[in-house]
Amino acid sequence: MSQTELSPEERHRERMQRKKELVDRKIARATIERGVLVVNTGNGKGKSSSGFGMLARSLGHGFRCGVVQFIKGSFSTGEEAFFRLFEGEQLAYHVMGEGFTWETQDKSRDIAAAQAAWAKAAAMLADESFDFVLLDELNIALAHRYIELEAVLAAVAARPQRQHVVVTGRGAPDALVEAADTVTEMRVVKHAFKAGIKAQKGIEL
Amino acid sequence: MSQTELSPEERHRERMQRKKELVDRKIARATIERGVLVVNTGNGKGKSSSGFGMLARSLGHGFRCGVVQFIKGSFSTGEEAFFRLFEGEQLAYHVMGEGFTWETQDKSRDIAAAQAAWAKAAAMLADESFDFVLLDELNIALAHRYIELEAVLAAVAARPQRQHVVVTGRGAPDALVEAADTVTEMRVVKHAFKAGIKAQKGIEL
Repeated sequence: MSQTELSPEERHRERMQRKKELVDRKIARATIERGVLVVNTGNGKGKSSSGFGMLARSLGHGFRCGVVQFIKGSFSTGEEAFFRLFEGEQLAYHVMGEGFTWETQDKSRDIAAAQAAWAKAAAMLADESFDFVLLDELNIALAHRYIELEAVLAAVAARPQRQHVVVTGRGAPDALVEAADTVTEMRVVKHAFKAGIKAQKGIEL
Repeated sequence: MSQTELSPEERHRERMQRKKELVDRKIARATIERGVLVVNTGNGKGKSSSGFGMLARSLGHGFRCGVVQFIKGSFSTGEEAFFRLFEGEQLAYHVMGEGFTWETQDKSRDIAAAQAAWAKAAAMLADESFDFVLLDELNIALAHRYIELEAVLAAVAARPQRQHVVVTGRGAPDALVEAADTVTEMRVVKHAFKAGIKAQKGIEL
């Protein structure tokens, strides 16, 4: 039967069959199994929420997970209220005790808080029992130079081979992007805030 | 005391004080409280995981939430295993029963499955009791024209005033971007898959 005699349904099936072969070949080529370093950066929405989505996935697989939130406003966030439910054996959750740097206006207090948070993170990165570690807004603390980039790169490079690490925050340093396996730039197409809409519970908070 | 006599700590405090005033003024201008339409699109990682992170936030605030996953591979995903724990009063979770279109290779079956999933979604968008609705990979079903864009736009526009809706998937149609409050393009900077690393549990799965 020539191509022109195929019904639309049959043509769809042929096209999809070719697509499946292509996709299957790509999947077959990706054979490496190891922990990955994921970086979510850029000015758009979704960097932290994507990190928390991966946390949910990891918890769904029964992984032991760690979270360190490096920057926190004075508001209590929905994700913290939610994931604290799982604190204990399966989840270690640490929130840096201070607000944004322009809220505290006290640089030495900010540095001390960031370094205390980094000590928690470094302990997780050195611990075989953690399968997944989320370092939320670490890039902000790095941009302010409150934490040494070299210390972060060394700890990430020396982590257990199967451990996944997700780092979020705008302005990811080049060396961290270089070290990462997967990097996404969240680009703003538009944002409700600019149209006068308050940060909304369940979306931003 | 002149500017030059300020200590580094004092200069930092002044700079942060000005930044705080700027941020506070911006926050004061954003006064509208209502449900927002968020669209996560682009070819990069983080579209769905960000949607699931917002779902976690919403559950953390005690919101009633609905999820419809329009495209699902044959693998069982971590997010489904995890969020199914909350199914019931607080969460309605519906997964379209078929795989990707190139897996099934049967267009009429795909269309029927997509339209059944859309019927679930439309019911949520018409229901005052849902505070948050995640329509995961809806953009893919729209791109294949398995669901009418006009029906989606009408249902979203007519939804309860306080209901948040998050739509994910590459190739968001222009009219949906136009209708949305917040749109992020997830841009690939790099992806582990291209370096031969398999999709990883807790990260992609």
